[in-house]
Amino acid sequence: MRDNRSVILDQVDVPIVLAPMAGGPSTPELTAAVAEAGGFAQLAAGYLSAADTAARIAATRAATGKPFGVNLFVPGPPTPAADLADYLAELGADHTLGDPRYDTDDWDAKLALLVADPVAAVSFTFGCPSAAEIGRLHAAGSEIWVTVTSVDEARVAVEAGADVLIAQGAEAGGHRATFVDRPADDTADPLGLLALLQLLTAATDRPLVATGGLATGAGIAAALAAGAVAAQLGTVFLRCPEAGTNQVHRAALTADTPTMLTRAFTGRRARGLRNRFLLRHSATAPVGYPEIHYATAPLRAAARAAGNPDEVNLWAGQTHTLTPELPAGELVAQLAADTKAALEKALSRRIQHY
Amino acid sequence: MRDNRSVILDQVDVPIVLAPMAGGPSTPELTAAVAEAGGFAQLAAGYLSAADTAARIAATRAATGKPFGVNLFVPGPPTPAADLADYLAELGADHTLGDPRYDTDDWDAKLALLVADPVAAVSFTFGCPSAAEIGRLHAAGSEIWVTVTSVDEARVAVEAGADVLIAQGAEAGGHRATFVDRPADDTADPLGLLALLQLLTAATDRPLVATGGLATGAGIAAALAAGAVAAQLGTVFLRCPEAGTNQVHRAALTADTPTMLTRAFTGRRARGLRNRFLLRHSATAPVGYPEIHYATAPLRAAARAAGNPDEVNLWAGQTHTLTPELPAGELVAQLAADTKAALEKALSRRIQHY
Repeated sequence: MRDNRSVILDQVDVPIVLAPMAGGPSTPELTAAVAEAGGFAQLAAGYLSAADTAARIAATRAATGKPFGVNLFVPGPPTPAADLADYLAELGADHTLGDPRYDTDDWDAKLALLVADPVAAVSFTFGCPSAAEIGRLHAAGSEIWVTVTSVDEARVAVEAGADVLIAQGAEAGGHRATFVDRPADDTADPLGLLALLQLLTAATDRPLVATGGLATGAGIAAALAAGAVAAQLGTVFLRCPEAGTNQVHRAALTADTPTMLTRAFTGRRARGLRNRFLLRHSATAPVGYPEIHYATAPLRAAARAAGNPDEVNLWAGQTHTLTPELPAGELVAQLAADTKAALEKALSRRIQHY
Repeated sequence: MRDNRSVILDQVDVPIVLAPMAGGPSTPELTAAVAEAGGFAQLAAGYLSAADTAARIAATRAATGKPFGVNLFVPGPPTPAADLADYLAELGADHTLGDPRYDTDDWDAKLALLVADPVAAVSFTFGCPSAAEIGRLHAAGSEIWVTVTSVDEARVAVEAGADVLIAQGAEAGGHRATFVDRPADDTADPLGLLALLQLLTAATDRPLVATGGLATGAGIAAALAAGAVAAQLGTVFLRCPEAGTNQVHRAALTADTPTMLTRAFTGRRARGLRNRFLLRHSATAPVGYPEIHYATAPLRAAARAAGNPDEVNLWAGQTHTLTPELPAGELVAQLAADTKAALEKALSRRIQHY
């Protein structure tokens, strides 16, 4: 069986996973609401200290007795200052920048926290933990979910001991989960979700969670028909009252603005709505995460405070115009009903002909 | 009903459409084999004169009594010679080039042919015919299928009178069907198939045929679950014995080579396997179709004849490694059975939980 490695995915009431949306949107309230509605919800720990992560886990547990997951960013290597200098000078001409520092996002302390006080699943973005790290989390009782964007990354994750692969298609909003961000790969445009699911199904027997541009029950149904065990959605929850999405971001989502991938805001490829900052700086932005993230943090905060969408990272997937404004629980129920209806319709319409 | 504008799609035995693959792979034999197996098959008329198109239609009719479609390239404007000069000089340094001429691909004569001697459906790539042209083909009894890559293009096609929209996702092999090829749009990476299907479902009630990276029954099932009435497949048929695919192309398809979009071969964006020519010239290739197509034709023909994959346009979708070597009829039967099984599995696995 493809999916018997994941007790979570075998037992979840609806095949909907809340994406971890670090940097604001992810809240204990949103995680709890999706869990209460029968989905499997993740809490983002990216950008948080271990202490803040512990506080958010506690707040989530206070709001729901259901299992949930915590997502960590896997740290990469620091970037030489010389590789960042030109871009920092370009931005510095018009903006007050933050310190372009490197850190591991409190990796060791967060791992220790999750080993000492486990959650149902620990998921990873930007890489794959070592087999030893996965072993510690397994011993604590957690499932390991690793986000992958290619067959090669899936092989690494399976080898290291991942229980579940989150298959991220090119359509996804926010950061690409790619293990190593290489500009040389930019020209080989990323795999679309349906292509990735078909390729992963042929290459691995691990259960797949599909993510990237899924905003409707029909989209979720498609992911399940393609062989995924569940669908992970992020952008569609950004306008829920429980989400911590800032007002500039909320307001921008409904406009018919195209998205694109950019390193301009963080030094790592991420999909966001096109705005002035992104269009002006994408061509020159280098690989340099988290250094560029920290350098641009003050200007993004100032723009958010001023209600100026032109200098905010407006992460969004390709179907952002379909984002409703609904409480998360109602949204999950609606999506689940629409998913079932879409599968039944596809099967009933065609079965006579086969 | 979303799909009652298409008698073809209501009556087809299996929800599989053979993509038109101009320039070699499309043959009367392949079209007839897919039609006989219960799919709806298209014959490519791109690059053919009206007389050659008529001959291929006759050959297809001789091989099958089933209905089929013919696909035309909609001509765009000529490109000023000054816009091509630098690129032609770059290529000319190493290659003998053809005349970078402009033509309309015999548009008027092929339309007249199809009005005088109609087929079940006329489909279009690279644009949308005028309402008057569609009216003439409608009066002759043909359905009009227009390939679109965005909601805006879908609106144009519906306004002009299209009966069916072929939704082409970013994953597709060969040329992007985009109405106008604008380099300024390259940074807003194209919509993935599942994202496009969800957006089109919200924007139009025309029946949708999904295309782009579909190579398995699970992929087709996903397209149907997402709301498409059928799935159009191209790359997956390239290794069929009935296809006219050249040997260099056939051999290259099974290697795990990444694809990318390029204007290097034809002056219009198309997805092909990365090879030396593509990597060397993609950054400088201008918009200039069909002029660049004609300029590179001799060097591509020479490389094909020499068995040299480094200078051939190896069009392929993102799932090309899944392309089997099977007779087309067996492939259609296998895909149809797998499609049904994938939908039943998705529904049965989850229905208990909803």
